[in-house]
Amino acid sequence: MKQRSKPFAEKFMVRPGRRFRLVDCDPGGDGIFADKEEAKVLTAKDAEAIDGLQDRLYAEGKRALLVVLQGIDCSGKDGTVRAVFNTCGPIGVRITAFKAPSAEELAQDYLWRVHKACPPRGFIGIFNRSHYEDVLVVKVRGLASPEAVARRYDEINAFEKHLSGNGTRILKFMLNISKQEQAVRLRERIATPDKRWKFNPGDLEDRKLWNDYMKAYEIALTRCSTSHAPWHVIPADRNWVRNAVISRIVRETLEEMAPQYPQPKDWNPARIKVV
Amino acid sequence: MKQRSKPFAEKFMVRPGRRFRLVDCDPGGDGIFADKEEAKVLTAKDAEAIDGLQDRLYAEGKRALLVVLQGIDCSGKDGTVRAVFNTCGPIGVRITAFKAPSAEELAQDYLWRVHKACPPRGFIGIFNRSHYEDVLVVKVRGLASPEAVARRYDEINAFEKHLSGNGTRILKFMLNISKQEQAVRLRERIATPDKRWKFNPGDLEDRKLWNDYMKAYEIALTRCSTSHAPWHVIPADRNWVRNAVISRIVRETLEEMAPQYPQPKDWNPARIKVV
Repeated sequence: MKQRSKPFAEKFMVRPGRRFRLVDCDPGGDGIFADKEEAKVLTAKDAEAIDGLQDRLYAEGKRALLVVLQGIDCSGKDGTVRAVFNTCGPIGVRITAFKAPSAEELAQDYLWRVHKACPPRGFIGIFNRSHYEDVLVVKVRGLASPEAVARRYDEINAFEKHLSGNGTRILKFMLNISKQEQAVRLRERIATPDKRWKFNPGDLEDRKLWNDYMKAYEIALTRCSTSHAPWHVIPADRNWVRNAVISRIVRETLEEMAPQYPQPKDWNPARIKVV
Repeated sequence: MKQRSKPFAEKFMVRPGRRFRLVDCDPGGDGIFADKEEAKVLTAKDAEAIDGLQDRLYAEGKRALLVVLQGIDCSGKDGTVRAVFNTCGPIGVRITAFKAPSAEELAQDYLWRVHKACPPRGFIGIFNRSHYEDVLVVKVRGLASPEAVARRYDEINAFEKHLSGNGTRILKFMLNISKQEQAVRLRERIATPDKRWKFNPGDLEDRKLWNDYMKAYEIALTRCSTSHAPWHVIPADRNWVRNAVISRIVRETLEEMAPQYPQPKDWNPARIKVV
């Protein structure tokens, strides 16, 4: 089972150096899994495996894993975290939801708050949105000059290379939902009293800018999918496909990292007496 | 079922103003639950309920819950978090494990790092160890002057009163294991290759100081169990008793807080059209 010719991740990876187009990616994800039940069972097994691997990662204490989740409103970022990382739990996982920057954050360069939120060695860090907002919403809404945005792709690549060179493995996931599916989810959010608080009328302004956002994603994924920090485009119209694809890629990545429990160096287990 | 005459928590609560003695507390916890299976089922149900209540807490955005876990090595702090809070998951739960303070932290007063780690509104914060180490290990090992330690009980009470007055509900749990049970767990840790990394020969030095630690706990719990931040002493020799007791107290506390989903103030759900 471990003898796979190609990692599963490759099917979803944006090839470094190649121009990426969203039209080539199906948000449905038919045929990847036999059915919903199979996908859910696989996700649960992967989540268990991720939990065990994170324990080793922590015990080893040398490396970290950073998972970047990007996607338009309702693309399922929170749902992904729950399905893939709740088994691991809050002890091993540090999540940061990046919102509009505070005054303190705006007084620094845009990567300052991001660097501060990176996972310490031994942890899985999750970014719910990320520094990519600085080339997505910032570009679409014109919150920085076009020249400043243009510089950021290379800066982000340099930053991620630095992280990667210092022990942080990076996986980036774009949750790809269709415009129709977003409409379904927004309508459900508005219709359900217990979900209404998640909705903001301003979300509809972003929806009107759908094409601009998709273009910004295409540029960002084309310019910032690198061998040390690859982007993956995940079919996200069905939650169970999305969860099963991401859990398998995370699991395979951790298996490839193969963290090991350290053995005692300065004491001999056979000689310790607990009295 | 909701019509309880007395909250379950009262059985385990250290009465404010009363002298507390550990000898009155049984680490076994016989008879609280019918059996292990029942306790596990109840814990899982409580964990689900806590998840739902935290969602409301976040949506409401006005208050936080801080859970302080204290206990000697092997008392089960991590196991408690997994059993009670993994269902809620890393999105809603922020955990801080307090280790020996860093140089930066030592350059500030002892509550500085603690305040910084307090949960934002909407979150459940968990302290794995806490500011109570500043009247436990610090007292037992003489890491601060007796006069400085003596001042801290009142300072801690004032700090917790401040938090409580500003929207943070506080629950403090002392995981009470017997000295015999700690020996069993330490021996298992040493004997199991995958758990050995958790053991430090220095842990045995703390074990030799068992009585000093227990005295320090008695003073801390006597002086710092208050109506706004009560201490609970949890029978912890059996994991399933410990988990079921804590999950029920956390659930009852959140139910009493009764967070509510907010309804939209400045928009009318019936008028929103998603196109």
